[in-house]
Amino acid sequence: MAQKPSIPKGTRDFSPEEMVRRNYIFDTIRNVFQHYGYQNIETPAMENLSTLMGKYGEEGDRLLFKILNSGDFLKNITPGDVEAGNINKITFSISEKGLRYDLTVPFARYVVQHRNDIVFPFKRYQIQPVWRADRPQKGRYREFYQCDVDVIGSDSLLNEVELIRMIDDIFKKLKIEIVIKLNNRKVLTGIAEVIDAPDKLTDITTAIDKLDKIGIENVYEELRQRGLSEDNINMLEPIINLSGDNEKRLTCLKELVGGTASGSQGTNELQEIVDYLKKVEIKADVEIDQALARGLNYYTGAIIEVKAKDVNIGSVCGGGRYDDLTGIFGLPGVSGVGVSFGADRIYDVLEEMNLFPEHQKGTTEVMLANFGKKESEFALRVLEVLQNSGISAELYPDAAKMKKQMQYANRKGVHYVMLIGEEEMKAGHYTLKDMETGEQTKEVLSELIRLIQG
Amino acid sequence: MAQKPSIPKGTRDFSPEEMVRRNYIFDTIRNVFQHYGYQNIETPAMENLSTLMGKYGEEGDRLLFKILNSGDFLKNITPGDVEAGNINKITFSISEKGLRYDLTVPFARYVVQHRNDIVFPFKRYQIQPVWRADRPQKGRYREFYQCDVDVIGSDSLLNEVELIRMIDDIFKKLKIEIVIKLNNRKVLTGIAEVIDAPDKLTDITTAIDKLDKIGIENVYEELRQRGLSEDNINMLEPIINLSGDNEKRLTCLKELVGGTASGSQGTNELQEIVDYLKKVEIKADVEIDQALARGLNYYTGAIIEVKAKDVNIGSVCGGGRYDDLTGIFGLPGVSGVGVSFGADRIYDVLEEMNLFPEHQKGTTEVMLANFGKKESEFALRVLEVLQNSGISAELYPDAAKMKKQMQYANRKGVHYVMLIGEEEMKAGHYTLKDMETGEQTKEVLSELIRLIQG
Repeated sequence: MAQKPSIPKGTRDFSPEEMVRRNYIFDTIRNVFQHYGYQNIETPAMENLSTLMGKYGEEGDRLLFKILNSGDFLKNITPGDVEAGNINKITFSISEKGLRYDLTVPFARYVVQHRNDIVFPFKRYQIQPVWRADRPQKGRYREFYQCDVDVIGSDSLLNEVELIRMIDDIFKKLKIEIVIKLNNRKVLTGIAEVIDAPDKLTDITTAIDKLDKIGIENVYEELRQRGLSEDNINMLEPIINLSGDNEKRLTCLKELVGGTASGSQGTNELQEIVDYLKKVEIKADVEIDQALARGLNYYTGAIIEVKAKDVNIGSVCGGGRYDDLTGIFGLPGVSGVGVSFGADRIYDVLEEMNLFPEHQKGTTEVMLANFGKKESEFALRVLEVLQNSGISAELYPDAAKMKKQMQYANRKGVHYVMLIGEEEMKAGHYTLKDMETGEQTKEVLSELIRLIQG
Repeated sequence: MAQKPSIPKGTRDFSPEEMVRRNYIFDTIRNVFQHYGYQNIETPAMENLSTLMGKYGEEGDRLLFKILNSGDFLKNITPGDVEAGNINKITFSISEKGLRYDLTVPFARYVVQHRNDIVFPFKRYQIQPVWRADRPQKGRYREFYQCDVDVIGSDSLLNEVELIRMIDDIFKKLKIEIVIKLNNRKVLTGIAEVIDAPDKLTDITTAIDKLDKIGIENVYEELRQRGLSEDNINMLEPIINLSGDNEKRLTCLKELVGGTASGSQGTNELQEIVDYLKKVEIKADVEIDQALARGLNYYTGAIIEVKAKDVNIGSVCGGGRYDDLTGIFGLPGVSGVGVSFGADRIYDVLEEMNLFPEHQKGTTEVMLANFGKKESEFALRVLEVLQNSGISAELYPDAAKMKKQMQYANRKGVHYVMLIGEEEMKAGHYTLKDMETGEQTKEVLSELIRLIQG
């Protein structure tokens, strides 16, 4: 029964070449996380639906992949349930687990569940896939990796500073030029208050968040539709149009919203972060952007977003401070702050800018050609010496035609092919062919190893 | 709405300490795989049920985690279906995807799907979790990692030799003493033929596979129950009781089963592997075990199983050759051979034998204590110097009591704490406390860095 094999839409296979590049990104990110004292955890792919439901809004609930209960899942539903078409009731009758939708909610669950074993402030990172039943489209997948880094249990702004330093370090290592945009939820609250529309906070931020995409006139139009008065909008105008460097923006913002408690606190926090950052070397541009909102209902303090300078691809990293993430699981009052790196977007930037390192680990350095059984027995020992010298090496398994063996080495990106036929075995001088230059060297093994190790 | 958070039974959270140890295992395995020229691929967690079903037997089909279709999954079932209780029909009406059950079937699917892009022989490794709706019990989980390494597209026995060399290398690096047991499906076929019970192959191997557990008398009893005659059993006796070193066993096996085509081929293959292995250095014991069967219906040639010498825990690695794995997906006649390493079992062995390295990467080397805002600004620069020197370091984010900061460093396993108060800032001499010995050093930064880098 031959079938044409395929994979579910929105999911991907990763080839060896792609994995080398993906691992380059993951390794770079992971190394920086560890270098700054963050520790790795992992959580299960499946969480109880009670953990996941209601955490991502109605749309999010719908986008959770739900797992059918094993065993007789039918025992909890009746023909009447199907007749009534009550899909929600039936869903929860036949499914009690779902695939994680992000790494943040499982992290909050983890912190509460293991609170007695955790050393706070808890600096953790987590690099794992997440699943969303979104409609697949270019650049949007149903399975994708998130790389999250968070500190929980400290409200010091030094944490924000550390995250910004890590972002800078990671993209510096990846050679991607970036802008780090910075805002504070309290500044947004202050803005809504000073324009006399504190109840319209979400409407305001949703609209002005689109400034880059739709332009100022359309933002105003949307604000009108969302019920803001012309007075409100007139007062908002100087705030939205605020420009200049961070110091100038901060000065203006303090004037404009510093009169409210939130506005004053938010601008002071931004000031403190900016001041700290002056003490260290940051390669990226760090820009205060009073229009930056990002999932506002979630964040309570700093809001951070990172864009690549030379590629128009949306944000490559983002996050912020949330003051009560663990409250939903029964541990209130624990402040956290974190960011998430988008591996797929970063991959696309590196590819588009041709920034992947040319020589990447992930393939064989030396292949020994196979000349038959007797030669293979001999080659096995040479292979052992090469590998013990730290050189990744393989012996072609079959005594195939030399052309086929060379093609294999070539397509696999093997750097050197070593030829040890009967003659070479006797002479003790082996031939080494550089597959990139085509150059051939005939020498004793120790010399060839020196050559390979460069 | 506070809930007591938990995770689905049979799944696990991994703490930072556990992740350091798990990553030590994965990194060791991965490095050896790469060193021998194997390349990494990844496949999606979800596969189409049509890919997975029927590949693991009836029991396996039942143990697949199935994913509820998103959207209106009810539209394909009627109240009558529920009334009829036809759980299979309903399952496939409301679910078309499942979580992968192992890495072998997805690999076969991958090879067929991407056959035109693959360089054969294809040497791939894959380290990813798999899911099984098994009843959870000690050491058996519903989510666990497999570390698979396979060559596909070559029937040379040099591949078996390479796998054995890798197994030896990995466990040598992990410092676990092992026995590698070796058999060949064709020897088993030969045995069934010479005792005149070729149709009883599965019964024979199922029974003698239990030799270690239930003893010889119970094996005979089981064989009787499975319909073998006393004649059959009498002929089987010398084969089962065969002992001695590999040469002796091979000589006897050739005498006993070499008369059949299968038996002759199987013993010759074992002989060739054993001969190749004499050319290289293998630390492990390699033992031919004519009673080794392991998932017989799957393997067609070599059968490999690895046991830890000092811990009674079942096999820590196993695999074999399969001649037509990709046939089910429409690509017949491609031979493959591979083994799978059990990370959880290996973890348990390392823990029981106290073999995890004492100093493992995964925590901060130096923590700078926090004495307040002014000192923090200063400390940020020192932090930067430390990190740029390749030292993983962090600044405690809050100006908390020194006792609390020290406790944090201690519980996190931080090696050094650096103290830079007002006095130290002025003097340019900072205090470094070794958290393991309690020793304190007061010196200029460059000297302290030299000390830390040891």
